Amino acid sequence: MKKGKFIVLEGPDRCGKSTQAKLLLNYLIEQGRDVILTREPGGTPTAERIRQIVLEPGLSVTPITELLLYEASRAQHTQEKILPALQAGKTVVCERYTMSTCAYQGYGRGIDLKIIDTLNRIATLQTVPDLTLVFLMSDKYFTERGEYLFSDRLEQEDLAFRKKMRQGYLEMIQRTPNAYLIDADKNISDIQTRVRELLEKHQV
Amino acid sequence: MKKGKFIVLEGPDRCGKSTQAKLLLNYLIEQGRDVILTREPGGTPTAERIRQIVLEPGLSVTPITELLLYEASRAQHTQEKILPALQAGKTVVCERYTMSTCAYQGYGRGIDLKIIDTLNRIATLQTVPDLTLVFLMSDKYFTERGEYLFSDRLEQEDLAFRKKMRQGYLEMIQRTPNAYLIDADKNISDIQTRVRELLEKHQV
Repeated sequence: MKKGKFIVLEGPDRCGKSTQAKLLLNYLIEQGRDVILTREPGGTPTAERIRQIVLEPGLSVTPITELLLYEASRAQHTQEKILPALQAGKTVVCERYTMSTCAYQGYGRGIDLKIIDTLNRIATLQTVPDLTLVFLMSDKYFTERGEYLFSDRLEQEDLAFRKKMRQGYLEMIQRTPNAYLIDADKNISDIQTRVRELLEKHQV
Repeated sequence: MKKGKFIVLEGPDRCGKSTQAKLLLNYLIEQGRDVILTREPGGTPTAERIRQIVLEPGLSVTPITELLLYEASRAQHTQEKILPALQAGKTVVCERYTMSTCAYQGYGRGIDLKIIDTLNRIATLQTVPDLTLVFLMSDKYFTERGEYLFSDRLEQEDLAFRKKMRQGYLEMIQRTPNAYLIDADKNISDIQTRVRELLEKHQV
């Protein structure tokens, strides 16, 4: 029986998730709430061992194998850390969860989204966030930061991959209950204000 | 495009699968066929690393995590060894495949069979055996071999687990196309004769 609230921060790398997660954690603690901050793959020893397999050079891992390994890691993280905290009435703030897999492996790499959705349901034991905050920067701003300079083909491919993922996040926000786009171009303080507004609106 | 034939030998431990698989391999080679013998988890380096996680003492692995890890291993085995051989027109003889997971994790441990069926379809890329031979001994005979002596509670629990799995195999034979019960109480030579008859009958 889930009693606590489950808040997930999603979005690509370097969009400010970690900064906002820490600010949110401090805010919730100030409110007197019992809260844990975690992130995928969750830092459990089992998840860490699974991660080593995916990252080991020279080890052949097909996209479907990789997907199943990430989902095994998610299952462990969910059952070992997230669900016990929620069942104890704690608020759980988690960086990255099911949407990340759809964005990277699905929209990015082209694995059938139905397969990913199915695996996500199995791995999470159907644990669904009460609020999902999706941090997205505009492509323009991202470029100004110097991340993508169009200087070679690899970087252009990387930008194309980013754009597919970005489109994916926007589509997922549309069809996911209690999911919101957060404009990550804004300054840290304005973003945190928006995050708190959304928590209040949803009584999360 | 699958061109070769895929033969799977299923059944609990110590029912004679390996002996029959080797006899079958020799028979097929004598027939001039290009054939490989493999077994789950397939002996690929990736599968071996995954197996270490499941078996490591002290590492927390929930039943769903374990299931996803086994399926990741199956995905790698299927894509790295089984499918390339089938696509090259080879006959593949494999000890244990999807039915084993249903028997152990499903009928034995009680994980929802629909979840296991779904994961099996994803991990195998819907690769289905042309012939499944399920080797089962009678419980009576098994006891006579001295495996279960009812001498303590653990062994009785083990027997109860075996009985659930046996019932599971029988149910799966009923609903799986091209799956047959092989009476493993018979002698090695009679069993091999039956195996060859079934291959001929199915033109496998």
